[in-house]
Amino acid sequence: MTLIKDLVSGDEFTGFYLIKELEVKQTNATPPKDYLDIVLCDASGQLPAKYWDASTRDKETFFPMGLVKVRGLVQTYRERLQIKIMQIRPAADADGVTLTDFVRSAPIRPVDLIYTIKQATASIEDQEIRSIVSFCVDKVEDKLMHYPAAKTHHHAYFAGLAYHVVRMLEIGDFMCRQRPFLNPDFIKAGIILHDIAKPEEMTAQLGIVSEYSVKGKLVGHISMASNWITEAALRLDIDLDSEKVIGLHHLVLSHHNLGEWGSPVQPQTPEAVALHHIDTLDAKLQMVEDALDTTPESEPWTPFIRGLENKAVYRLKV
Amino acid sequence: MTLIKDLVSGDEFTGFYLIKELEVKQTNATPPKDYLDIVLCDASGQLPAKYWDASTRDKETFFPMGLVKVRGLVQTYRERLQIKIMQIRPAADADGVTLTDFVRSAPIRPVDLIYTIKQATASIEDQEIRSIVSFCVDKVEDKLMHYPAAKTHHHAYFAGLAYHVVRMLEIGDFMCRQRPFLNPDFIKAGIILHDIAKPEEMTAQLGIVSEYSVKGKLVGHISMASNWITEAALRLDIDLDSEKVIGLHHLVLSHHNLGEWGSPVQPQTPEAVALHHIDTLDAKLQMVEDALDTTPESEPWTPFIRGLENKAVYRLKV
Amino acid sequence: MTLIKDLVSGDEFTGFYLIKELEVKQTNATPPKDYLDIVLCDASGQLPAKYWDASTRDKETFFPMGLVKVRGLVQTYRERLQIKIMQIRPAADADGVTLTDFVRSAPIRPVDLIYTIKQATASIEDQEIRSIVSFCVDKVEDKLMHYPAAKTHHHAYFAGLAYHVVRMLEIGDFMCRQRPFLNPDFIKAGIILHDIAKPEEMTAQLGIVSEYSVKGKLVGHISMASNWITEAALRLDIDLDSEKVIGLHHLVLSHHNLGEWGSPVQPQTPEAVALHHIDTLDAKLQMVEDALDTTPESEPWTPFIRGLENKAVYRLKV
Amino acid sequence: MTLIKDLVSGDEFTGFYLIKELEVKQTNATPPKDYLDIVLCDASGQLPAKYWDASTRDKETFFPMGLVKVRGLVQTYRERLQIKIMQIRPAADADGVTLTDFVRSAPIRPVDLIYTIKQATASIEDQEIRSIVSFCVDKVEDKLMHYPAAKTHHHAYFAGLAYHVVRMLEIGDFMCRQRPFLNPDFIKAGIILHDIAKPEEMTAQLGIVSEYSVKGKLVGHISMASNWITEAALRLDIDLDSEKVIGLHHLVLSHHNLGEWGSPVQPQTPEAVALHHIDTLDAKLQMVEDALDTTPESEPWTPFIRGLENKAVYRLKV
Amino acid sequence: MTLIKDLVSGDEFTGFYLIKELEVKQTNATPPKDYLDIVLCDASGQLPAKYWDASTRDKETFFPMGLVKVRGLVQTYRERLQIKIMQIRPAADADGVTLTDFVRSAPIRPVDLIYTIKQATASIEDQEIRSIVSFCVDKVEDKLMHYPAAKTHHHAYFAGLAYHVVRMLEIGDFMCRQRPFLNPDFIKAGIILHDIAKPEEMTAQLGIVSEYSVKGKLVGHISMASNWITEAALRLDIDLDSEKVIGLHHLVLSHHNLGEWGSPVQPQTPEAVALHHIDTLDAKLQMVEDALDTTPESEPWTPFIRGLENKAVYRLKV
Amino acid sequence: MTLIKDLVSGDEFTGFYLIKELEVKQTNATPPKDYLDIVLCDASGQLPAKYWDASTRDKETFFPMGLVKVRGLVQTYRERLQIKIMQIRPAADADGVTLTDFVRSAPIRPVDLIYTIKQATASIEDQEIRSIVSFCVDKVEDKLMHYPAAKTHHHAYFAGLAYHVVRMLEIGDFMCRQRPFLNPDFIKAGIILHDIAKPEEMTAQLGIVSEYSVKGKLVGHISMASNWITEAALRLDIDLDSEKVIGLHHLVLSHHNLGEWGSPVQPQTPEAVALHHIDTLDAKLQMVEDALDTTPESEPWTPFIRGLENKAVYRLKV
Repeated sequence: MTLIKDLVSGDEFTGFYLIKELEVKQTNATPPKDYLDIVLCDASGQLPAKYWDASTRDKETFFPMGLVKVRGLVQTYRERLQIKIMQIRPAADADGVTLTDFVRSAPIRPVDLIYTIKQATASIEDQEIRSIVSFCVDKVEDKLMHYPAAKTHHHAYFAGLAYHVVRMLEIGDFMCRQRPFLNPDFIKAGIILHDIAKPEEMTAQLGIVSEYSVKGKLVGHISMASNWITEAALRLDIDLDSEKVIGLHHLVLSHHNLGEWGSPVQPQTPEAVALHHIDTLDAKLQMVEDALDTTPESEPWTPFIRGLENKAVYRLKV
Repeated sequence: MTLIKDLVSGDEFTGFYLIKELEVKQTNATPPKDYLDIVLCDASGQLPAKYWDASTRDKETFFPMGLVKVRGLVQTYRERLQIKIMQIRPAADADGVTLTDFVRSAPIRPVDLIYTIKQATASIEDQEIRSIVSFCVDKVEDKLMHYPAAKTHHHAYFAGLAYHVVRMLEIGDFMCRQRPFLNPDFIKAGIILHDIAKPEEMTAQLGIVSEYSVKGKLVGHISMASNWITEAALRLDIDLDSEKVIGLHHLVLSHHNLGEWGSPVQPQTPEAVALHHIDTLDAKLQMVEDALDTTPESEPWTPFIRGLENKAVYRLKV
Repeated sequence: MTLIKDLVSGDEFTGFYLIKELEVKQTNATPPKDYLDIVLCDASGQLPAKYWDASTRDKETFFPMGLVKVRGLVQTYRERLQIKIMQIRPAADADGVTLTDFVRSAPIRPVDLIYTIKQATASIEDQEIRSIVSFCVDKVEDKLMHYPAAKTHHHAYFAGLAYHVVRMLEIGDFMCRQRPFLNPDFIKAGIILHDIAKPEEMTAQLGIVSEYSVKGKLVGHISMASNWITEAALRLDIDLDSEKVIGLHHLVLSHHNLGEWGSPVQPQTPEAVALHHIDTLDAKLQMVEDALDTTPESEPWTPFIRGLENKAVYRLKV
Repeated sequence: MTLIKDLVSGDEFTGFYLIKELEVKQTNATPPKDYLDIVLCDASGQLPAKYWDASTRDKETFFPMGLVKVRGLVQTYRERLQIKIMQIRPAADADGVTLTDFVRSAPIRPVDLIYTIKQATASIEDQEIRSIVSFCVDKVEDKLMHYPAAKTHHHAYFAGLAYHVVRMLEIGDFMCRQRPFLNPDFIKAGIILHDIAKPEEMTAQLGIVSEYSVKGKLVGHISMASNWITEAALRLDIDLDSEKVIGLHHLVLSHHNLGEWGSPVQPQTPEAVALHHIDTLDAKLQMVEDALDTTPESEPWTPFIRGLENKAVYRLKV
Repeated sequence: MTLIKDLVSGDEFTGFYLIKELEVKQTNATPPKDYLDIVLCDASGQLPAKYWDASTRDKETFFPMGLVKVRGLVQTYRERLQIKIMQIRPAADADGVTLTDFVRSAPIRPVDLIYTIKQATASIEDQEIRSIVSFCVDKVEDKLMHYPAAKTHHHAYFAGLAYHVVRMLEIGDFMCRQRPFLNPDFIKAGIILHDIAKPEEMTAQLGIVSEYSVKGKLVGHISMASNWITEAALRLDIDLDSEKVIGLHHLVLSHHNLGEWGSPVQPQTPEAVALHHIDTLDAKLQMVEDALDTTPESEPWTPFIRGLENKAVYRLKV
Repeated sequence: MTLIKDLVSGDEFTGFYLIKELEVKQTNATPPKDYLDIVLCDASGQLPAKYWDASTRDKETFFPMGLVKVRGLVQTYRERLQIKIMQIRPAADADGVTLTDFVRSAPIRPVDLIYTIKQATASIEDQEIRSIVSFCVDKVEDKLMHYPAAKTHHHAYFAGLAYHVVRMLEIGDFMCRQRPFLNPDFIKAGIILHDIAKPEEMTAQLGIVSEYSVKGKLVGHISMASNWITEAALRLDIDLDSEKVIGLHHLVLSHHNLGEWGSPVQPQTPEAVALHHIDTLDAKLQMVEDALDTTPESEPWTPFIRGLENKAVYRLKV
């Protein structure tokens, strides 16, 4: 079976792919005819595809997030590759293909990511901080198994959020060893909690965010996480006014650094300063890595990257 | 007894005043001598005062927020009035003077302000919204009797916060009648809750803010109020994910309108849009009114007002 | 006759509508064929429509702002409703339909709006201020009967400008009663004059702005209104340097508050501060109300609203 | 008589100077003693001066903008020169000294500057434009003889405004020859009118601005000049809606280029674009020239210049 | 032969033109057909053109920057003119047409521009400055003969860069005479060097920029020119730390004035201040002139101009 | 000998200290008397000190950066400690005290820092990159032994620059191991070169910056380092247009990320993105660490830190 990223113009191929997007459109003919405007993907990449002359039944059969078997032809349209679908049918149980094999994923298995996050939580020495972090992780453990960290910005794939947290834990661990004035409990707690409410802010399937929830828009993941800390403390009978609890609120609330980036307060503890910059370092480098990974080796420049001042990244020839 | 704002250069006077600020300073003589650098105030205004040649005992006797009896002489120093204190002693019980008579206050009695706020709370038709608002008001009822709305920005005097809320309730009531698509329950709840956590954000005495609390700096009154809503809902057994609770969070979180002004989300319900603009209208007009009240009638221009693009306000002669 | 907002996919219908926009386009067929790309509206809303295979005569018969009788079919195209026009003809006198019944209008009759504005003018106590306001109103009285307040921003419909002024007069009246330090004459004058030159800044028909005038672009409505005040004072023999005249200039010039919003000076009188915030409060709430009115009840979110930080507004389910 | 800029530490000198600023201050002695804190200037520069132990009579005798004869001693105080006044008396008629000899002035005589401006006005070919410009110049001709262009920003000296206009006329003349698509009438009119209302915006004596007028603050010189154009057209019976008049308004209104710099509209005619950049070029280079002129030759760096991004200017050694 | 700008709807014509852009596209027919989507230009302007039913051979024959002979028909498509190509063939040597006759060019011949720049270089009195400028000019002399000053911003045509330099030299010469404190050597050097590396920053052919070079993107023309000064000084054995060399670096590095416009340092010498404003004045007026030249006389407004706050320019009717 | 940070009010003490700042001032007595206004420091901190009644000889004997023996008395002045100097004399050779023992220093010895930087340089695999880095390090090796990284911003102490580089090398090494797509040669080179020209941008002694050099102000350390790379490549005969050299220029030029922070280009290689964020992370955490170190343990809040959005940092009590 051919991977999407290996297809070249002129190829005829047959294989299983995921319908990432699907829209019924009409040609400009008079009268117009319906066709399916599709984005097909597998874990290696994605390509636009057209299924001309779609019947009423076709329009009812195919839908986004469905696995399909396709026979197609690769064409060039306006300097870009595009698939002309000759035959298409939904995948059946007998085909033995699994949805999650067809989406981009973090390079580490979700169960291992969750295990690492739980280990880090367990290693927090302070019992109250540990139990609050644990309470919040439990709330979203299922979703952490597959949620991305954002819609498009960075780590936008299967288990991207948990992967982001795990990489940050590694950096956090290094920074605590390099700079002993940092409190490792707060560093770990801040890293695990900073985006913990994102799975409730967005609706995602297979690592692909379809929309933001009402609560996500009206409250936002930063304030939601702050409220979960309050809920945890109340349920666990921890003093709401203790500096531990205030410190956890502060880490979450300040991690975007500036008001215009969504933080109602600015970092004012050593660990809050560290958290913001560890988060930024990991997110920016991941944007670079993701852009390089999904840009063909033959292209010296990646596409423009919104989060990097809308600049493209260049592969120096050295 | 002469009011501060009636003193003119050359007056000799005796009266009771409040020490608003006090610092022990040294003259530049060799060796330097200690003197008390004081700000004296009453409800009509304030003036700087010097008590030269302060003894060790004097330095231990006088302190900020203390009532004193003063015999003094009004001088002009660098084009401004200044009091030379000739005699000074702490006020005694027998003097029959009351602290609160010597500070600037809202023009309505605190008990009446609180009564109005409680009436407005009671008039909220939705039982759950009403009980959450009530829970939060109860938390700070004592402080609402005397807290200012801000350190210097606006309504910076005794019971200024409650007064701000009451005036906003009047505007809110008018707007709900003018525009029936606004939900009066949310308008009332938003007005009462929007600054409800300010008394925990700052430390104030007699309407004068001395400093921000640690929680005030690290969490901020907006997130604190949001967390109180969570606490109220948990304790009152109200669904945390109901749109009522989300709507209340949203009103509080968005009322500063923009991220750079401290709001992590922007107004996205009709009542949240209204709340921000009612808050602004009342605060800006109060800044104007306060500046006019404390500027002598003979001055056509008030001092510069930070919250009004740092402009002075002019009294047109018409 | 079916209202636009009641049409659903699959409906066949006949009725009178207004052509709001019309463009002759070509299909991509070889050779291309002409068709009419139309926006049909009535007072309840608007929908795109196509009239395929337009003849040369059709292209000469139909034009924007024309009333037509249409027999059509409602289709769904790219998730949005669209009308396929089967038959179309211009409305004739005998049809007894009136243009103004087919556009969105202020909810109060223009004559009543003008009456209210004239009453408010007449109630200005100062004779000079009153006569200047009157002079300016007279200049545009005809256009005030139907001009919108803006191209798209807010109150963008028939008599929207006069409606905006009347609602602001209500708020201004309330604020003068709540805060007696405000001068009612200046508040009324400021509200009536602040946008008085807009009808000369834009060209509008039936409440729909088609373009800005040369003077509108090179001078702008703020400076135009300021110059009208000068013209009024000169013609009425009022001292150009009196503080009354300066005060009126100031109200108009400062009402956008900031230079980047078009005001060459910032508000520096009590009434100028009030005027800006009353204007903002009314405009923002009208944006919300208009967005809610034109969004189907079934949609929880309105479209994004430019003037509200480009946020959508949500209907809370309570 | 020694020029201020030639005084060095240790000099004893006698001469006539102007009191630019004067404040009565007190020493920190107990009781404090009065002294005069003075800024002495002549056309070459200025220095701070102290007159210790001022008598009541001294305090009544000396005032800003008064000419005095001084015997003094030059001292160094905190690395800067300062004059200790030993003797001081007001200049008398018999001394034969003239105020204007003691202030910084444009390098061209005021009468010559006015002559040049009138010649340029007379050379405007269009009769209507010429008469409007003439009307406005006549309004302020007396003040043009001595007004500065700004309080401190640039051309802040005797006849600085007229000098700025004359230099701009030279550049404007060159640009019209280099780029024939520019209309010389509008270029001349724009240059003469752009700051024409500044003498009514500020109060100045001897080229030194003491304060802004009420009209200056509430209306501003840009809108004032626009209103003068209206007044001129009305009195001269020129069509207010002609493109000539609109063009003149536009030049004045747009010459600060951006809203945040005070222009309610942005340049949209060729001459308005040229006017803004000619104005900027002349003002910025004059700031540099003035800073170099008033910085001792021995100093490689001038002080920081607000209008040049708050940078100092360096004299390269080449 | 008909000039592009003289073509009107309905014309049939034959002539030679340059293919400025060319893309192979497909119609929406099923199956889609290929056609050539072309922009044809000559020195007077440009128009879109379609060549329907392109054969495989056509697709291999025509390419951007090729001269062609075309027989076509002018049609109106969406209110704009468009050419339907009936016949097309590449120009042959025998046709006697020259590429450079078909592109927009500076109004002065390239050899004359280069001659002027070399004369100005030769007139620099300081031998070291002169030789550094000369070294840099030599590096790009060939490209100066034809490079534009920018991709679209200003002077975007054949020899536009050299033309920009020559016009600036004229202004610089005038300013040095008006303000003798400016050093003419630095003014000339700054004008010649400020954009000298642009031909290495971009790839251009016939005055049309196709893309930025890798070095252009990663280093930028400002730093490239600064590095050329270093290279020149090293090769010419001039002291790298002399104030002459520092002064040249400074002129180049600061000429965009602000960091957000690309200058790592802000102007801090008299000549650097002058250079920035001469550059701006010339560029902005050229944008106006170019927009007027390429807008039909019948249009009162030019298109929006990015570099002029995205405003259009109006031709006043006077 | 008592450390500065251990002095408390009322202490009489004798010891050796460094004069960090010294100014001759006058008292306000009539006539004024000279005194020495001094800042005394040792490696633990600093305190203001006064030496009253300074003789002419005293004024010639003491100077900044001089070691002195002091007998003094600790007083409290305006709530801050201040030393009254009773006796003072310059330190003599016989005293056996060393300047560098009295200034704040990096916690690692300069020779060890230089050794680490040289080791990192030697470990760069690419010979050309290694030799360019080596060339630049050699230029400033002496100054690297003691220069701070900035005047006040961060690492403002003895060998602070080298220390900053060494800590960044540690982080860079970790990041290269965590993210193998980063090129370690460029990461090392970027870290070593990014601030390499700072010692030529500023003048510093004992880790204390006294001023910026002319070249520092007119060219800036970023462009200076870029020019050193050119110089190195020319002298080492390395192709100026190779992507290695371009890549090094890019790292240095882009490391401040944004134009308004001084970078003429934005990061566009993976290593440039990493360099900026590693630099920021290290600088910000060092600001926190330095602020905590120099704030007495008893103070919960540090002073405001300019580089951290002007926020103070809080020590949570946990």
